Amino acid sequence: MKHIVILTENDLPTQWYNIIPDLPEPLPPPRDPKEGPSRVQNLPNLMIGECLKQEFSNENWIDIPGGILDLYLKAGRPRPLFRATNLEKRLDTPARLYYKGEFYSPTGSHKVNTALAQCWYAKQQGFERVTTETGAGQWGTALAYASAVTGLKCTVYWVRSVYNWKKDRLYFMKLLGADVHASPSPATEFGRSLYDKNHDHVGSLGIAISEGLEDSQKDPKATYALGSVLNHVLMHQTIIGLESQKQFEIFDDYPDLVISCLGGGSNFGGFALPFVGDVLKKGKKTKFLAAQSQVAPNLQGTYQYDFADYAEITPMLKMYTLGHKTDMLPIKGDGLRYHGCSPILSLLRHKGIIDTIAYPADERHVFENAQLFMETEGWLAAPESAYSICCAIDEALKCRETGEKKVIAFNISGHGFLDLPGYESVLGLRS
Amino acid sequence: MKHIVILTENDLPTQWYNIIPDLPEPLPPPRDPKEGPSRVQNLPNLMIGECLKQEFSNENWIDIPGGILDLYLKAGRPRPLFRATNLEKRLDTPARLYYKGEFYSPTGSHKVNTALAQCWYAKQQGFERVTTETGAGQWGTALAYASAVTGLKCTVYWVRSVYNWKKDRLYFMKLLGADVHASPSPATEFGRSLYDKNHDHVGSLGIAISEGLEDSQKDPKATYALGSVLNHVLMHQTIIGLESQKQFEIFDDYPDLVISCLGGGSNFGGFALPFVGDVLKKGKKTKFLAAQSQVAPNLQGTYQYDFADYAEITPMLKMYTLGHKTDMLPIKGDGLRYHGCSPILSLLRHKGIIDTIAYPADERHVFENAQLFMETEGWLAAPESAYSICCAIDEALKCRETGEKKVIAFNISGHGFLDLPGYESVLGLRS
Repeated sequence: MKHIVILTENDLPTQWYNIIPDLPEPLPPPRDPKEGPSRVQNLPNLMIGECLKQEFSNENWIDIPGGILDLYLKAGRPRPLFRATNLEKRLDTPARLYYKGEFYSPTGSHKVNTALAQCWYAKQQGFERVTTETGAGQWGTALAYASAVTGLKCTVYWVRSVYNWKKDRLYFMKLLGADVHASPSPATEFGRSLYDKNHDHVGSLGIAISEGLEDSQKDPKATYALGSVLNHVLMHQTIIGLESQKQFEIFDDYPDLVISCLGGGSNFGGFALPFVGDVLKKGKKTKFLAAQSQVAPNLQGTYQYDFADYAEITPMLKMYTLGHKTDMLPIKGDGLRYHGCSPILSLLRHKGIIDTIAYPADERHVFENAQLFMETEGWLAAPESAYSICCAIDEALKCRETGEKKVIAFNISGHGFLDLPGYESVLGLRS
Repeated sequence: MKHIVILTENDLPTQWYNIIPDLPEPLPPPRDPKEGPSRVQNLPNLMIGECLKQEFSNENWIDIPGGILDLYLKAGRPRPLFRATNLEKRLDTPARLYYKGEFYSPTGSHKVNTALAQCWYAKQQGFERVTTETGAGQWGTALAYASAVTGLKCTVYWVRSVYNWKKDRLYFMKLLGADVHASPSPATEFGRSLYDKNHDHVGSLGIAISEGLEDSQKDPKATYALGSVLNHVLMHQTIIGLESQKQFEIFDDYPDLVISCLGGGSNFGGFALPFVGDVLKKGKKTKFLAAQSQVAPNLQGTYQYDFADYAEITPMLKMYTLGHKTDMLPIKGDGLRYHGCSPILSLLRHKGIIDTIAYPADERHVFENAQLFMETEGWLAAPESAYSICCAIDEALKCRETGEKKVIAFNISGHGFLDLPGYESVLGLRS
């Protein structure tokens, strides 16, 4: 039995897949709210030029520039697709399980796939610095990495409540030369207005976004970079699914069910969209299932225009949303705590192509399944990726009941080496 | 320019390289001390049968059983060989630098290469459990992993002074189902004799070895596993160098200088021995350089028979040693703190084939070079691997002076995701 398919450097896809022209109906464009300044007209000031162009492109395939291909190779792409032979045996399931190994990422998550592209384009455009916000820290780490290897400076505004305890991630960003601020910070006008009143202000993603944007808008040599939700971000991530398709060909198999965790949608979209394209264009019958948390089951919200950020700086996007000011309980899979799902995936949900399942906030079932995966397959998954694993195992167990020989593909978007305290707190490993 | 060579699952070497018959003179065998019971005669009680056989084998090539090849594939082998294109540019060196990516290991270090083999053989021999000691924790983690995926139980005796602060590694072993004891522990007679007098006894590797051995010898279903120094361990690790040789062929290049860090010798041997074989048999002129710490420059010690362990349970081995009761200062590259070098590598040193360099105990230069590597190549190395990087950079800078277009190959034996506090404490990243 084949356990793994490894693609060589010569097999790296040279184009990203843009699903927009293949969608069953036109993607609703970003829109301005009724009041206030136009956010849509301000987009060119916020975004890297080439990314903005890609955001609205109707080309099906976008060439990946040679410089970005080089960066992908240096980051160790292509990444392997594994058959979960040991897990299948343990579950005694007739299903065939496959997982993609994004955990080989230099920063530990799939986020580098778009960070590298954005930094490369920013550099081409003459920028010398990128700014961003980060919550859980994965995106900030990925951008710090991409900035370092492309020769840009990087400034990260990091929600103070997380900044204060994720010391290892902070050291990681600092090793890469990034300038990291606990947000709200005294480094921006908006941040200062809050920081001066309370030096211990815990901050929020909305505040951190505002600081990152203010910083980049005041410096003509700086631009802002976004890590999820938007069309071009998902498109950069399709490198994951495109590689996986080549690997399934070599396995001589094809997924009946594609699973991944979903917060804003970048890893889910990156893995699933090429397979969705096969459904839309080639008549494949593959199903898609997003593994979410009950603290943020955004695909179970309402399909409407909403802001992408708490502070209402971005345009409104048509998406499944829980409301952009919704409070969400803390969970270890922090990257899944986002109020809205990317417009592309929201439309696909609206058309019945993507389904969703949400797991309880205590995360016990999720982490127990991640542990089972580790005991059998050996890989320590990021807390967010634990949701993908959990969902795949649950589906494989259903196949044991029904006898279905379903082919289940799931994405391990990152590793958990920096998240072991999270495993401990959910599973109680100390004793 | 080519940045990476990735081998596919079909390129995985199917034999290990045993250098013993190619050595310039016969390898001195293990020997008993003048007094006390025979350690040599006791070896069959201590070691896995197939490993003992391999330890004294004169076969040049040993077939890797299909079951172990499967395990290597599941652990993501083969691993890539990278050309350090960005680093070369930053250093402005005419040298060509290549590094092997053992950091893709599921537990973060090359130790899995022998852990998987030993567990597989132990299982074949009917054992149900493996025991071991660990100091820094890499070996314990690797054996916990290998036990989990082969279906063995695993008991780890972990030096208490390290056990107490490396919580993340403890959680990692526990997630894999291992039974982990702070040593000295109340679980063995020998451990209890120390533990009862002082519950906070900091322990030592010698004590932990004694506990692991006692445990396995009292249980006919258990056996003991060793992570370095011995011939069969280095042989299992040659998978690293054998893959690298295939990759150099595809790069159409060949190393003039092979570098790796050296504690007991398992990663150095695994990477270097196949190239040493080319020197001994094919007339290649490659040089070999071991990167060590001044706290444990064992290759700069004396070449004589010495015990492999503090407690004098093992036979005496002919090796370069600092003396088996030497105290060594703590360093972050804890895996390099060992008093003796493996007999094979010691003989090669004795014959002038391997050279050594030792870096100061403050580790600042080592970690600064690892940071430079991270800023350019993007990978976070384990503290031990930082020595390999440091040495390669220093050698590349010499080439800048001399103009030599030297080809330098180095091994990154593991990643540093669990070692970020070490980077912080040496480099002061907090500010």
